[in-house]
Amino acid sequence: MSRFLNSFHKNLLPYTPGEQPVDMQYIKLNTNESPFPPSEKVIKAINETEISKLNLYSDPECTALVKRFAGLYNVKPENILFGNGSDEILQYCFYSFCGEDKKAIFADITYGFYSVFADLFHIPTDIIPLNDDFTLPLDRFKNAGGTVFIANPNAPTGLALTKNEIIEVLESNKDDVVVIDEAYVDFGAESVVDLIGTYKNLIVVQTFSKARSYAGGRLGMCFADKELINDMKMIKYSLNPYNIDRLSMAAGIAAADDDAYYKNNAKTIIENRAWLVDELHALGFEILDSKANFIFAQHPTYDGKRMYLQLKDRGVLVRHFDKERISNFNRITIGTKDQLTVLVDTIKAIIKE
Amino acid sequence: MSRFLNSFHKNLLPYTPGEQPVDMQYIKLNTNESPFPPSEKVIKAINETEISKLNLYSDPECTALVKRFAGLYNVKPENILFGNGSDEILQYCFYSFCGEDKKAIFADITYGFYSVFADLFHIPTDIIPLNDDFTLPLDRFKNAGGTVFIANPNAPTGLALTKNEIIEVLESNKDDVVVIDEAYVDFGAESVVDLIGTYKNLIVVQTFSKARSYAGGRLGMCFADKELINDMKMIKYSLNPYNIDRLSMAAGIAAADDDAYYKNNAKTIIENRAWLVDELHALGFEILDSKANFIFAQHPTYDGKRMYLQLKDRGVLVRHFDKERISNFNRITIGTKDQLTVLVDTIKAIIKE
Repeated sequence: MSRFLNSFHKNLLPYTPGEQPVDMQYIKLNTNESPFPPSEKVIKAINETEISKLNLYSDPECTALVKRFAGLYNVKPENILFGNGSDEILQYCFYSFCGEDKKAIFADITYGFYSVFADLFHIPTDIIPLNDDFTLPLDRFKNAGGTVFIANPNAPTGLALTKNEIIEVLESNKDDVVVIDEAYVDFGAESVVDLIGTYKNLIVVQTFSKARSYAGGRLGMCFADKELINDMKMIKYSLNPYNIDRLSMAAGIAAADDDAYYKNNAKTIIENRAWLVDELHALGFEILDSKANFIFAQHPTYDGKRMYLQLKDRGVLVRHFDKERISNFNRITIGTKDQLTVLVDTIKAIIKE
Repeated sequence: MSRFLNSFHKNLLPYTPGEQPVDMQYIKLNTNESPFPPSEKVIKAINETEISKLNLYSDPECTALVKRFAGLYNVKPENILFGNGSDEILQYCFYSFCGEDKKAIFADITYGFYSVFADLFHIPTDIIPLNDDFTLPLDRFKNAGGTVFIANPNAPTGLALTKNEIIEVLESNKDDVVVIDEAYVDFGAESVVDLIGTYKNLIVVQTFSKARSYAGGRLGMCFADKELINDMKMIKYSLNPYNIDRLSMAAGIAAADDDAYYKNNAKTIIENRAWLVDELHALGFEILDSKANFIFAQHPTYDGKRMYLQLKDRGVLVRHFDKERISNFNRITIGTKDQLTVLVDTIKAIIKE
């Protein structure tokens, strides 16, 4: 770091995104993207007419996009806020509702960005270890005394809480914000968007990067009581009012118009996940019960890191975390049946050697 | 604000973007956009092939885009960083190089976002009043004892410093970062990008929102010594690693490939500016010597706010600031000759009444 960097940041450890190697073509099962392209309606919506208007600023209120999603989710426009990916929404959550006197509470094994945001903004944390079976110790999240962040389903485990379990957390933290990060909710977990009317302390975060095939376009959103949305809007207007570009605005609306396409893709991912789980079980793997578009798997005898490296050598990328408790696991994105067939065949060859 | 918002933010005053009314079609001369569409090459670059890949994350390092602009600006890739608009780059500058023990120094009349960032991050400031003729009191920016932010040309005045004047500021602040915000540099001011090799404390910020006709697409960049770039990258990777989407990446490269188109448009804007200045001088206006794609003008007898409201009533939007010292001025974006002709005719009609 330079001598000019403020000493406030001297211990900062940035987020490490999944690797995006350019040395060769990989079967990429490491960053939980959708293997399916955006809907035809999205492709048509990003057309020459829209592109020709890029000289003009986008609508900072995202009026049309917000209205469309209010209809789709049966909430009011005042209950929605969009961000440049759900990472930006999470950033708003940390910066708005945590601080020196309000800690952030999250699991030790969860989305890696939570601890990065806490570090970046010097927010004190209460990091709660998952149980030995990687389930969330729910009681530790009740009366937690700070802003609660729960990824549901959790990453990289894929395990989900039920709606009733989340209600228990909401009920016991009425004086604190509870952020439910539903990045992976479309693959089998229960959403709690319909609870925002009941719980004024609930923020539900969703993304277009997973089920909505738009990771490379950047769009995320959250649902919450109007007052929480207005707080976050104040932060947005103090950071980057034009954060959503015109093309993402058009693409988002078109995605809403073709919701069935994405729902159908999610169904395919769930089917492929079941197939992969069966195949890997047959090879002796232990796999957590995933409700996400990835599985978290370990082999009882074959080392996880070695498996990751061997797969990479053979052109298949999965995600390995060099972290205590989970270093023998790999997180494998659910791709197409063809991609998963190559994966399974490659694993078979590796184990056989 | 909700009862959940951290008290840290209780006095926050967000940035107010220029109005984007939807009640009727205006001649929009209020937000300093380019009146020209993006280049044909940009329109072609955002094609079905690129859109179909939006299910995959973008390259967080922006490798191809950075390489292309390193070539165009004759610097090394390590000297460039892109952001989601130059606002995001400015955010990195404030958060990286200012802090409790390092104040931010900028003019009282300049880009409104500087004071918003300072407020948002609780950064102490030294806000230096412009001279009576709205020029920058250069000596006050020497040995300034903090991180210096200068918009060159300045907004909303349009007045520019010479390169030699900026060198004086750089020479006298060698232990502090000097940020030169060149959002409007393409309309007649001197850029200092070529000084980044000499001054390790210099950051030059540019945007695609003005001369590059991409305000609605969000792309900004900065040039600086490698160490400063790496500091800002650490902040970027702690906030939103995938901040630049795939389409903006492709559009940016195509814009570099058609640099002559944008240079030619800037030339047209400069010509139109000269024409408008002549026309308004003939109507008695006082106009500062603008090197930007807007002018800052006041009439000796006709009230500035009334002029703004009268123009709005008749379908022409300009920007008025309800702020001491400049409340009699209006900032008028230089549009096409047709747009400016309507503006002049409308002003004539208003004054006549």
